Amino acid sequence: MIRSLLRSTASRSFVCNYSSKAVPLTAETYSSKVSRNPSFKKLDETDIKHFQTILNDGNGLITDADDLLFYNEDWMRKYRGQSQLVLKPKSTEQVSSIIKYCNEQKLAVVPQGGNTGLVGGSNPVFDEIIISLSGLNKIRAFDEVSGILKCDAGLILENADNFLAEKGYIFPLDLGAKGSCHVGGNVATNAGGLRLLRYGSLHGSVLGLEAVLPDGTIYNSMESLRKDNTGYDLKQLFIGSEGTIGIITGVSILCPSRPQAFSVALLGVSSYEAVQKVFVGARKELSEILSAFEFMDRNSQVLAGQHLKLDHPIESDQYPFYILIETSGSNKEHDDEKLETFLANSMEEGLVDDGIIAQDETQLKSLWSWRESIPESSTMNGGVYKYDVSLPLKDLYGLVEAVNVKLQEAGIVGFDDPTKPVVEAIGYGHVGDGNLHLNVCVREYSKEIEKVLEPFVYEWIQSKNGSISAEHGLGFQKKNYIGYTKNDVEIKLMKELKKHYDPNGIMNPYKYI
Amino acid sequence: MIRSLLRSTASRSFVCNYSSKAVPLTAETYSSKVSRNPSFKKLDETDIKHFQTILNDGNGLITDADDLLFYNEDWMRKYRGQSQLVLKPKSTEQVSSIIKYCNEQKLAVVPQGGNTGLVGGSNPVFDEIIISLSGLNKIRAFDEVSGILKCDAGLILENADNFLAEKGYIFPLDLGAKGSCHVGGNVATNAGGLRLLRYGSLHGSVLGLEAVLPDGTIYNSMESLRKDNTGYDLKQLFIGSEGTIGIITGVSILCPSRPQAFSVALLGVSSYEAVQKVFVGARKELSEILSAFEFMDRNSQVLAGQHLKLDHPIESDQYPFYILIETSGSNKEHDDEKLETFLANSMEEGLVDDGIIAQDETQLKSLWSWRESIPESSTMNGGVYKYDVSLPLKDLYGLVEAVNVKLQEAGIVGFDDPTKPVVEAIGYGHVGDGNLHLNVCVREYSKEIEKVLEPFVYEWIQSKNGSISAEHGLGFQKKNYIGYTKNDVEIKLMKELKKHYDPNGIMNPYKYI
Repeated sequence: MIRSLLRSTASRSFVCNYSSKAVPLTAETYSSKVSRNPSFKKLDETDIKHFQTILNDGNGLITDADDLLFYNEDWMRKYRGQSQLVLKPKSTEQVSSIIKYCNEQKLAVVPQGGNTGLVGGSNPVFDEIIISLSGLNKIRAFDEVSGILKCDAGLILENADNFLAEKGYIFPLDLGAKGSCHVGGNVATNAGGLRLLRYGSLHGSVLGLEAVLPDGTIYNSMESLRKDNTGYDLKQLFIGSEGTIGIITGVSILCPSRPQAFSVALLGVSSYEAVQKVFVGARKELSEILSAFEFMDRNSQVLAGQHLKLDHPIESDQYPFYILIETSGSNKEHDDEKLETFLANSMEEGLVDDGIIAQDETQLKSLWSWRESIPESSTMNGGVYKYDVSLPLKDLYGLVEAVNVKLQEAGIVGFDDPTKPVVEAIGYGHVGDGNLHLNVCVREYSKEIEKVLEPFVYEWIQSKNGSISAEHGLGFQKKNYIGYTKNDVEIKLMKELKKHYDPNGIMNPYKYI
Repeated sequence: MIRSLLRSTASRSFVCNYSSKAVPLTAETYSSKVSRNPSFKKLDETDIKHFQTILNDGNGLITDADDLLFYNEDWMRKYRGQSQLVLKPKSTEQVSSIIKYCNEQKLAVVPQGGNTGLVGGSNPVFDEIIISLSGLNKIRAFDEVSGILKCDAGLILENADNFLAEKGYIFPLDLGAKGSCHVGGNVATNAGGLRLLRYGSLHGSVLGLEAVLPDGTIYNSMESLRKDNTGYDLKQLFIGSEGTIGIITGVSILCPSRPQAFSVALLGVSSYEAVQKVFVGARKELSEILSAFEFMDRNSQVLAGQHLKLDHPIESDQYPFYILIETSGSNKEHDDEKLETFLANSMEEGLVDDGIIAQDETQLKSLWSWRESIPESSTMNGGVYKYDVSLPLKDLYGLVEAVNVKLQEAGIVGFDDPTKPVVEAIGYGHVGDGNLHLNVCVREYSKEIEKVLEPFVYEWIQSKNGSISAEHGLGFQKKNYIGYTKNDVEIKLMKELKKHYDPNGIMNPYKYI
């Protein structure tokens, strides 16, 4: 499906090409910021023998240096840990035995799902033992009446969705990495992805979890129901906890019916204010069938055009803003009629200057490509600094404008001036979720640019009560930046909670908070 | 609106008529089960003077015995506490000062919203100080673009919804007590109500909270955004915590667009299996417009007919099961066409035997009355034992059948036999939420009936991994029954969490866990 082509990107990351050059060790790159916790035990032969007994399977342990690399590195090649051991348990009980032993011995661990995160959350920093959930990958049960799916945490998202498609259901989450990422990792990082506008957050759709706590205790609320009001909703703590208070081993989730039809329109509007007004109208008139509302600024479309080597589908690409609307529902004819009426009304009101509706599947894909190709287009002049952040809707585009002013003041930006290091800052994203992608397209990476951008970007977000991380969480990368989004009380309460559940601090150390 | 006539009822409660007879003191009724915690201080004049200083307002303190009664009793007149003091703070800071002092002095407190709960959660058991949130009742902000409402916890739900209606939005929760209940109380008890099938749970729609912790700390995440992945989602702990780890003072919630049109159909089907199949079909074909899917068994309709003194709208009322389907969407014509097509298909497949679609607002209300009047109809022979529980869909009606068998075995049931104490057990409820209302209609209340019903009902629910409380929480009534729904690990973790946040146990004692 077209939407799976979209990639959810990092809040801030350098996009760089894969090369054979070794990824620098995280411990060395950040040696001034982090040092190994001396209270953690160093792995020895006795430990390995003990794990062999637990796993009772020669394939469950990885100690070979070459094989370890895949687990030690993140896929963006920004982080590299020095773990000497990967464990691949095949049951929740095995995970429990492993963690219990690690806690007793003070051996630090890193839970790892599909290793598709962008903030270094699933890679070790020093010699933490990696616990890969890839061996726990079964569908446990599916109720075709209620739509409740129960599965292992290591199930790949795409496999879950393919299974559901056969049953007429859809996983209430979709993202670019679906072919690799694990359902458990999605929950652990509270992934939002492409279906949030329609199906809401995982805090609403996850009905139960199974998780192993730092002392080996197995927490199990997998039997949870849609309505259950008997005590604190403990599972919520694990959603977005990034493996710091337990390892999720099982997920129970409510899945909606799969839509029968999709429609897409691309519009040109003359101001960001108009973008907001069109969004309000779409929420009202398209209401229950609205499944995506994406905006892109003019320069993002200019870049996309250069990259796609195509003419823009709307006669001119000179509108300050473009909007992509997707509807999905149970009746294509009804959906199209609603969409056409809505567009006609919006044009009559002067909110939309021009627009096009896809007439077939090919056009639908083509319209989406003007949104999807932006990430790649952003790198075509050299590289890109990426920020994936949340802001109140009214301030969403303000950050892009502020960054461009800042870059101009610093005299380092020039769209047509190859002597300037920065091409431009562009903005696009999920209006429906208040989620902005700010891409600062550059001709080269430099400390000079970074100094202009940071902490300016974080401070600006903080001044608008936004979030420095709309997706992917904190991990290693943003551990020290949480204060830009959360207040002192919140941070204190979080630290206390971490200590409450993981007094030895063995779970995914050096990260999160 | 028609739907507001529906009342969400208690998981288990005796429906009794209001009388001038005094409600027995909870402490006396349950003297064998609960005794005052001697570590709590008894209120004295110094305390009252201190509270006067904090509130700085003569109207903020209630000490008059008659005036206290309203706050000491629940509206079902099942519970009565002996509080000597009600405090009505008007700001979060005042709540904080009060709680801080109470914690230092070990004065126990009960937070109270609209006092519309059914499990005694908002009434004192002994002499706990009642903190009423009714003075904190303002709308703080509404963003017409995003639909995010920020309000005080004491805002009455109906006032919130009326405000939103003017803006074209709807509160994502509706329930019978909307005219009295507080938004903060809804969140504290994780109310589900009538819109859950469409808009999901509060865990998904609440974006931020303000709450005062037992030590007086003000936790504030009111600026939360739709996407924010920076640390543990602490607010989730307060949703459904029933005032045991803090007092919610402010709520930030995402509100959907208000539907433009409603349609309703009433159907007759021949088996509970058919009910499930029609539900699966409705989820698929009506999908995005489905807003209610209620089922009622035959006897519930017979009783409703006797009560309403009307002929059933479907020619015969002899179908084993009836289904009420409501759709709501942005285009009445489209919705009706979908509904008609769905019904035609269902009848062709032999799943639905007969059905009627409301042609106007009057008929729509009339069809709803066959669902709405069941609670009142249930009491017409004398009284009713009510259970509001969650079960896996396939087992939903099994409980009603099991209870009827149990009653027959005990020889105490007879629909037309006035010498038997029980008339019958009927079942109805929200299929979409797996939420069953089991009403055991009786001619009189008796220990004999109670012994047949309990713990049988709870054990049966437990055997199917259901929940003894779909709504209203645990409160005082179900404190000791949590083990029927939650396992030992969950209960242990909850108790530890309570101790973590409220080491002195001053927050809503004698309840919850």
